[in-house]
Amino acid sequence: MSFCMTPTPDRLQDRYPSRISDRPALLPRLDPVLYRSSESGQVASGQGSAGPLIAAQQKRYEREGFLLLPDFFSAEEIAACTQELDRLCQSEEVKRRQEAIVEPAGDDLRSLFAVHRISPFFKAVAADERLVQIAEQLLESPVYIHQSRINLKPGFTGKEFYWHSDFETWHVEDGMPHMRAVSFSLLLTPNFEYNGPLMLVPGSHTRFAACVGQTPENHYQVSLRRQEYGVPAPELLTQLVAEGGIETCTGAAGTLVVFDCNTMHGSASNISPLPRSNLFLVYNSLENRLQAPYCGLPPRPEYIATREQCEVVVPQTVEYSSP
Amino acid sequence: MSFCMTPTPDRLQDRYPSRISDRPALLPRLDPVLYRSSESGQVASGQGSAGPLIAAQQKRYEREGFLLLPDFFSAEEIAACTQELDRLCQSEEVKRRQEAIVEPAGDDLRSLFAVHRISPFFKAVAADERLVQIAEQLLESPVYIHQSRINLKPGFTGKEFYWHSDFETWHVEDGMPHMRAVSFSLLLTPNFEYNGPLMLVPGSHTRFAACVGQTPENHYQVSLRRQEYGVPAPELLTQLVAEGGIETCTGAAGTLVVFDCNTMHGSASNISPLPRSNLFLVYNSLENRLQAPYCGLPPRPEYIATREQCEVVVPQTVEYSSP
Repeated sequence: MSFCMTPTPDRLQDRYPSRISDRPALLPRLDPVLYRSSESGQVASGQGSAGPLIAAQQKRYEREGFLLLPDFFSAEEIAACTQELDRLCQSEEVKRRQEAIVEPAGDDLRSLFAVHRISPFFKAVAADERLVQIAEQLLESPVYIHQSRINLKPGFTGKEFYWHSDFETWHVEDGMPHMRAVSFSLLLTPNFEYNGPLMLVPGSHTRFAACVGQTPENHYQVSLRRQEYGVPAPELLTQLVAEGGIETCTGAAGTLVVFDCNTMHGSASNISPLPRSNLFLVYNSLENRLQAPYCGLPPRPEYIATREQCEVVVPQTVEYSSP
Repeated sequence: MSFCMTPTPDRLQDRYPSRISDRPALLPRLDPVLYRSSESGQVASGQGSAGPLIAAQQKRYEREGFLLLPDFFSAEEIAACTQELDRLCQSEEVKRRQEAIVEPAGDDLRSLFAVHRISPFFKAVAADERLVQIAEQLLESPVYIHQSRINLKPGFTGKEFYWHSDFETWHVEDGMPHMRAVSFSLLLTPNFEYNGPLMLVPGSHTRFAACVGQTPENHYQVSLRRQEYGVPAPELLTQLVAEGGIETCTGAAGTLVVFDCNTMHGSASNISPLPRSNLFLVYNSLENRLQAPYCGLPPRPEYIATREQCEVVVPQTVEYSSP
């Protein structure tokens, strides 16, 4: 498939219009959260889809839009991940890649996209059956990696990341049609309340926060450093937080955060000496492949949003012995 | 007393040299933390100075450098404080005062200095016997207000405040000779882990983190918006946090945080919708009045550092019925 052949979607078919109106709005979610029960939108008590998550966890995910799973990876597994992370961070070749986002002041790595393509080790992690089976269970579908990255928030100077729904960007700028993707954040360092942990707004995934403004061309080249478009209006955030509060995802290294593609999230700055790193993996349903971007602009690069290389992820047992 | 008559202190008499060397250093604290027992530096078990704090609280303050006192002010008292705060924030006359620090983007009030002089209401709060008696007890001395201010960290855009010891600045820029002052932060809004609460490094008050760099003239005009001098080096912060950790001062409105003038503290940004406000009162011992600044520059204005108007604060019973 080439994106030249993908027609620009008709505005009338855009079920989640954003960056079009000059007034922000909370629109209804038109897709299920749990795909097993897409007709009723509910998981019956005591019954869930087959897979690693028990029914209570599925119901919680459906209600809150996320799950926090402590001790998901063992200390030894995290040590292996950290060793590979260190190798990538120290590689000048890696830092010069287009997939690498480097700190504005200095040349420290802040993010590395497509880490499942760059690193055979993280490609294996992305196929770890413990992760993939959860994604398949929630989305009731084979999955592929829509986006992967390592996020490194350094100590002392780690910048805040303002509130956003990933789906809003993936829909507008990447042409993801439905809310049928799930994000995994695997904590590679301890996340304390004071080193800029992920913050989520419970229940926010049940509405779509339509943003104002138009998307400029090549927005992705600056948006990863500084956000201007796809920013939810203060009044929408106030309403969502008034209804759901804010959950701070603190936990030891090895904790896994699973959250819906439309859950509102962000993180504060990190002035503590303790860096905060995580592995971010987005699984999208094979039935939810990207169309042309709804903003009408050319699509973002393949390393930010997988469009052509949608290989099904086959769950596998991974050995985490350090290299 | 006029500062023209105050001699510039001899560098040899500067017991806490900072912004002089080009290498950062952790120097020993040469002053007691609790002034009752200045010879031994210890409060004997079960015995403390006379005053509101029991011996266990005094020992904790001596060891950690701070105390967190929940429910110190009642909801009704906080409501009265908030009403006065709102009045000040809405006053165009107040926002135009030199004591007012206004957000760089917009004209919202970020800080208001000398609030105990500007507002008769907050003058009374600063004399509240419940506060003053704690200050007198810790410093074993009559006290005056060295600095007072209201801090307002707005929702969505509240900026971080990097790590610092207040004493470092008060010593270098204001000529405070000894560590014999105590700061009170009265929470006027709930402080959650996600709206940029005060963070303290327990035990950091027992060393003096000497900073590098020289102080430029009129530094105070920019330092309140952006810090460049008097910033502790990363390696010192790493050591202090490795030893003491980080304590996040969350609590309901009405919580009082009492902390030593040399306790390292800071706060992260606030992207949550919930603003964070506090009343900041610094009591200094009358025996610790300001000398000429150790940096050799002219002193900062009276509204930032009381030099001439050192009236003893007489403890009084305050009625908090709203106006």
